[in-house]
Amino acid sequence: MEKLYCLIMAGGSGTRFWPRSKTAKPKQYLNIIGDDSLLQSTIKRFSTFTKYEDIYIVSGKSQATVLEEQTPMLPKQNLIYEPVGKNTLPCIGLAAMFAEIDNPEGIMVVSPSDHLITNEELFKNTVLTAAKIADEKNGIVTIGITPTYPATGYGYIKTAGEISAGETIRQFKVERFVEKPDEKTASEYLEQGGFFWNSGLFIFKVSVFLDAVKQFAPGLYADLRKIQAEIGQPSFEATLDTIYRAVQGISVDYGIMEHAQNIYLVEGNFDWNDLGSWESVYLTHPKDENGNAGSGEAILLDTQNSYVYSDSGLVAVVGLDEVVVVKDGDTILVCRRDKTEDIKKIVEQLKAEKKDQYL
Amino acid sequence: MEKLYCLIMAGGSGTRFWPRSKTAKPKQYLNIIGDDSLLQSTIKRFSTFTKYEDIYIVSGKSQATVLEEQTPMLPKQNLIYEPVGKNTLPCIGLAAMFAEIDNPEGIMVVSPSDHLITNEELFKNTVLTAAKIADEKNGIVTIGITPTYPATGYGYIKTAGEISAGETIRQFKVERFVEKPDEKTASEYLEQGGFFWNSGLFIFKVSVFLDAVKQFAPGLYADLRKIQAEIGQPSFEATLDTIYRAVQGISVDYGIMEHAQNIYLVEGNFDWNDLGSWESVYLTHPKDENGNAGSGEAILLDTQNSYVYSDSGLVAVVGLDEVVVVKDGDTILVCRRDKTEDIKKIVEQLKAEKKDQYL
Repeated sequence: MEKLYCLIMAGGSGTRFWPRSKTAKPKQYLNIIGDDSLLQSTIKRFSTFTKYEDIYIVSGKSQATVLEEQTPMLPKQNLIYEPVGKNTLPCIGLAAMFAEIDNPEGIMVVSPSDHLITNEELFKNTVLTAAKIADEKNGIVTIGITPTYPATGYGYIKTAGEISAGETIRQFKVERFVEKPDEKTASEYLEQGGFFWNSGLFIFKVSVFLDAVKQFAPGLYADLRKIQAEIGQPSFEATLDTIYRAVQGISVDYGIMEHAQNIYLVEGNFDWNDLGSWESVYLTHPKDENGNAGSGEAILLDTQNSYVYSDSGLVAVVGLDEVVVVKDGDTILVCRRDKTEDIKKIVEQLKAEKKDQYL
Repeated sequence: MEKLYCLIMAGGSGTRFWPRSKTAKPKQYLNIIGDDSLLQSTIKRFSTFTKYEDIYIVSGKSQATVLEEQTPMLPKQNLIYEPVGKNTLPCIGLAAMFAEIDNPEGIMVVSPSDHLITNEELFKNTVLTAAKIADEKNGIVTIGITPTYPATGYGYIKTAGEISAGETIRQFKVERFVEKPDEKTASEYLEQGGFFWNSGLFIFKVSVFLDAVKQFAPGLYADLRKIQAEIGQPSFEATLDTIYRAVQGISVDYGIMEHAQNIYLVEGNFDWNDLGSWESVYLTHPKDENGNAGSGEAILLDTQNSYVYSDSGLVAVVGLDEVVVVKDGDTILVCRRDKTEDIKKIVEQLKAEKKDQYL
């Protein structure tokens, strides 16, 4: 196998962790689990089998300060700033153009920046298995998480035949990508079998991916080539800005994966959590004897199965069950655990009321 | 009637309004309802029929700063500081010694500093009725609140015969004072009739009260006379400190009212609330269409029958029913409405852990 690149997509502006996640410091920069931010944990996870100089991060300019703060180990030129978010396909295409200059036959692992993965050794072996397939079969490989319940919050991938034979980490040909299903459909998927959760992890040879972009998104491909021609030039930023703002925003799932034929799936059996809400953060944390979790100074009286986070000061909770309480500076969230999805409505309301001090 | 004095007892260190109430700023100094503090509202209530120069306030030295801040209208010498809290009898006795120098035949109205009374005209008429009885009958008069439910949080007063005849404000001879009952006993009181809640409002002629102290608490009486002898002298504070620390702490109910014969009760039909908990604050506030109340910046989503207070910043509540959320600086309380009595346990724990920054 040639060189192994890692691309960490860190441009998300997730609002589900409000009030901790803010416009200038979204989820991936927060130390939601442990001391490191989710981005730092992601970098660490890859650094055991990828060199720092081969780890790229794509993010937005508004996050430049916190990104540079958190990534002193990476070369500055590996931090790529999109002038504006355009979903995953242009983002990955842009990074692939950087890697191609270095080595078009290199393998690139694309990873979200904000997921929790605790079994690092199994993760590494899974990714390296995927890289081997990507290299040998000139395919695009995705890592599919074995579903444990009929989740409606993830996209699913339907596999066709298994291509592995007796290996610990199973490998499949992919039949199709499907969008987030409703609960009934998700239950059918689980019953039917052969379905995996889309982890957002993709592995491919740079040249193979760019060929797919050329085939399925030729306009974008032409634009990315124009941008690539200016990499390292003083004019780069201006060119990127002009061209990138005009490209069509589209996900890699819609733009490539649903059309391409040479798609494979490697089964991911490592502990995986996309930390999509405070509820999932609660579920991930170790609990005390009352089922409570959290961090920061808190007094919980006659309170069970709750998550309490305080950045400073003190949070006291009395007589409640299954709540999330988050204190970030002078902004406080108190939410029923099964309502944490509604936090985005709070953020929407604050945006509508232009209360930027809380965003 | 001779002169009318008012004594406002403001020495309480109530912990039930934590985290808003702090050691240096207990409940009576908080603007729990409206813009004025409860103490300021109490002063205003009396100032329509008492001169500022005749309003005394007894409090603790630790509250001197906030007390002086909130009472610029009162002469400084009317602010009396107990070296240490000794319950209501020594407190009232001390103030009576000040008033006696001015006019022993004056009538003194003793009032808590932290109750909510909204019908001020009726309050005034009730107090003046009580003052008239105190003056004419040389008795100690208490104002009894007509019970509306079998409350277990108040002391009760059992009346004997009615002494009024056709007046709007009824007047009674008092049979006895009883302690806070359990719910069964309280229900019996209501069924039986003739019981009133003890409002903590007492009205008497200064000389009559001091005679009662002399009769039922002669040791205290002698001590108070020694203190009185030094009023206005440079040695006053040291004398007060030495003597007062040694007096027995006892309530006026136990020390006088349960023994004296010449006790009367005037019925208080004005709106009265002792604001004993965040729950009673919630009940007192006007509600929006979802049954929510409070003040400060808040977003309430799918939340009903709750009280949310924020001193600054933003409190967001999602999907909860019947909760109290109070943000005071960096201290946050989240409490089920029917558990607000348990807040004192939080305060006790903080005291035990010596976390004075939150007290």
